[in-house]
Amino acid sequence: MTNSTPLTRISDVRGFDTAEYRARVARAQAMMADKGLSALLLSTEPEVRYFTGYLTRFWESPARPWFLVVPAAGDPVAVIPSIGAELMRQSWISDIRTWVAPDLEDDGVSLLAATLDEIGGDRIGVPSGHETHLRMPLTDYTRLGGLLAKGTLTDDAGITRALRLIKSPAEIAKIRTACAIAGRAFARVPEIASEGVPLDEVFRAFQMLCLQEGADWVPYLAGGTGQDGYGDVISPASSAPLARGDIMMLDTGVIWDGYYSDFDRNFSVGAPSDVAARAHTTLMEATEAGLQAARPGNTAADIFHAMDQVCTGGMGVSDTGRLGHGLGMQLTEWPSFIAGDLTVIEEGMVLTLEPGVETIGGHMMVHEEDIVITATGAEFLSPRAGSELPVI
Amino acid sequence: MTNSTPLTRISDVRGFDTAEYRARVARAQAMMADKGLSALLLSTEPEVRYFTGYLTRFWESPARPWFLVVPAAGDPVAVIPSIGAELMRQSWISDIRTWVAPDLEDDGVSLLAATLDEIGGDRIGVPSGHETHLRMPLTDYTRLGGLLAKGTLTDDAGITRALRLIKSPAEIAKIRTACAIAGRAFARVPEIASEGVPLDEVFRAFQMLCLQEGADWVPYLAGGTGQDGYGDVISPASSAPLARGDIMMLDTGVIWDGYYSDFDRNFSVGAPSDVAARAHTTLMEATEAGLQAARPGNTAADIFHAMDQVCTGGMGVSDTGRLGHGLGMQLTEWPSFIAGDLTVIEEGMVLTLEPGVETIGGHMMVHEEDIVITATGAEFLSPRAGSELPVI
Repeated sequence: MTNSTPLTRISDVRGFDTAEYRARVARAQAMMADKGLSALLLSTEPEVRYFTGYLTRFWESPARPWFLVVPAAGDPVAVIPSIGAELMRQSWISDIRTWVAPDLEDDGVSLLAATLDEIGGDRIGVPSGHETHLRMPLTDYTRLGGLLAKGTLTDDAGITRALRLIKSPAEIAKIRTACAIAGRAFARVPEIASEGVPLDEVFRAFQMLCLQEGADWVPYLAGGTGQDGYGDVISPASSAPLARGDIMMLDTGVIWDGYYSDFDRNFSVGAPSDVAARAHTTLMEATEAGLQAARPGNTAADIFHAMDQVCTGGMGVSDTGRLGHGLGMQLTEWPSFIAGDLTVIEEGMVLTLEPGVETIGGHMMVHEEDIVITATGAEFLSPRAGSELPVI
Repeated sequence: MTNSTPLTRISDVRGFDTAEYRARVARAQAMMADKGLSALLLSTEPEVRYFTGYLTRFWESPARPWFLVVPAAGDPVAVIPSIGAELMRQSWISDIRTWVAPDLEDDGVSLLAATLDEIGGDRIGVPSGHETHLRMPLTDYTRLGGLLAKGTLTDDAGITRALRLIKSPAEIAKIRTACAIAGRAFARVPEIASEGVPLDEVFRAFQMLCLQEGADWVPYLAGGTGQDGYGDVISPASSAPLARGDIMMLDTGVIWDGYYSDFDRNFSVGAPSDVAARAHTTLMEATEAGLQAARPGNTAADIFHAMDQVCTGGMGVSDTGRLGHGLGMQLTEWPSFIAGDLTVIEEGMVLTLEPGVETIGGHMMVHEEDIVITATGAEFLSPRAGSELPVI
């Protein structure tokens, strides 16, 4: 339950052993057999990377689709634009089929159809549930379905979600590393933020701190500022200077070797008001309640209720919609801490505890920490915030 | 044709006037009337932002879908998670309908269906062509189609692509600003890169330079290094130290107020070989050829052929697949400089010229600049590279 004997330490080893990818494929194939699927067809960055290790920021360009086919038996086959072949050849994947993209007549669709006809079998699972999307044009997806000689495209029965939900020790080590980087950056916020500094300057300087402390890149930073809290938690920075009595919140997701941290910190500009100080105390108590509930056998809903009891007395969430979520190759992953999510907590899940409280009309404060589920409970991956609201 | 009388200057004004959003909607509605569509249904970040100005990095979280409905007449309606309502209320959009997301039973689908039944009419266009995707779960999309009382979901007939293809002066000013920021960072590369410095340290330091020079964030950085060139142009950094004789390429996309730059620079570690120096000269000549071809009335294919003639003598592209592309709210946008893209060039398009040449077996060099199409030709948005390969 404490941070004194961590399940994993921070890592400086990039990538994963091929054995880890083979184990992921084997687990996928066991689930596919159980669900009656003959292949998985994957098209998004984390799904392709999960099975291949293919790590590039080039997904930022929407021009080209990328595909990975995981057959019922045997190794995955990459069906990708030729611009990515050199990098994919550095992965453990040996069967790499390419086309010169973009191709306005046939942007990989017939090559993908031929590959699926060869190795995909008759029931091809495509991630289709909550938090998924298809990263290929709808027109091409329809065309793909028509080109298949025998296979049918169907839901993946939640297999990719179920696989990614439980992190390996090597994955957890990467997330712990990302959390340590963000933690060091947060500890240096007094160097860059004080009364009179515009919030957008704080945002720029904070991203530089994250990079200085070892982040590969900083995909996410949001925050807010205002008297006794802020109106929302997803806004970019304004150029308004920090004012005495403001609470400034920074919420960042930094990447180390393809894995995210995601936690925030609140700071008081000058001594906090009683309202803000009390809100911080409540958030710390709610975090502790969430931590106590975060153990194998409980559900995501149990963790929600534990925190919500402290935050609202059990009134349920506000506009933010949830009190935390999964974390890993994406800033937010399955599950959600809401009353309706009955996902059973298991060892190896990485989760964020993210309680929020209303302070004054229209303003709130939100706190967030990252944890990993152990055999008997949970431990912090983020360096846990102190009981006092830090003053800048 | 030169940079001496720029069409727009750099900007320090954030956002757009409401008049600009209204003009975008009016153009969309004229196209919808022409194509027989009764509404547009939009789900991705740039599409929603194009009509609303809604700018947040929160899209990094895949947990929640977001929707905008642009009806055949009247203002757009946002159908979004309640966590985003506060920020959306700061936009010009007044009809904002929210649900508390995530909701595992009904994640906005019935609210969206009711909205479409109310204002969407019978033929609802969803972007479905090249470079688009649907940012909602496939299962929910199917469910949405079934819930609609009268409307049918169909392709958007390329309307969103056609609209975003031509940039307004205010959009061009933002891109010019982003380009100026990246240009200042590139000019400072000698401060951070030299023989013996690991490439991943260069990547970190370069992102800090971009932030110091004014980038809001740095969504994209790729590059390569090697003797007389590099094997690909999309890789993350290795920890290999720069060696004498290496060519180091950095390709970055920085954001200013939601708009991208996208250009690269090559540097020689020590004096370049004759091979590398010649390749740089060829790339400069190809860029000039592309610039000369980049004028209203020519096609994207014409620009491709002009550059390809210099790069390969007309042999056609290599694995990179194209010699440039559009640029704006995304790192890459329509069109592509390929033989098969017959998009007619028009004033107001922002494009990248991105010629590449093979240097030695398996190695290449790629150069990239950003331009805007004027009434009679094109002018540079990026600070054009010099004729000599810079030495670090």
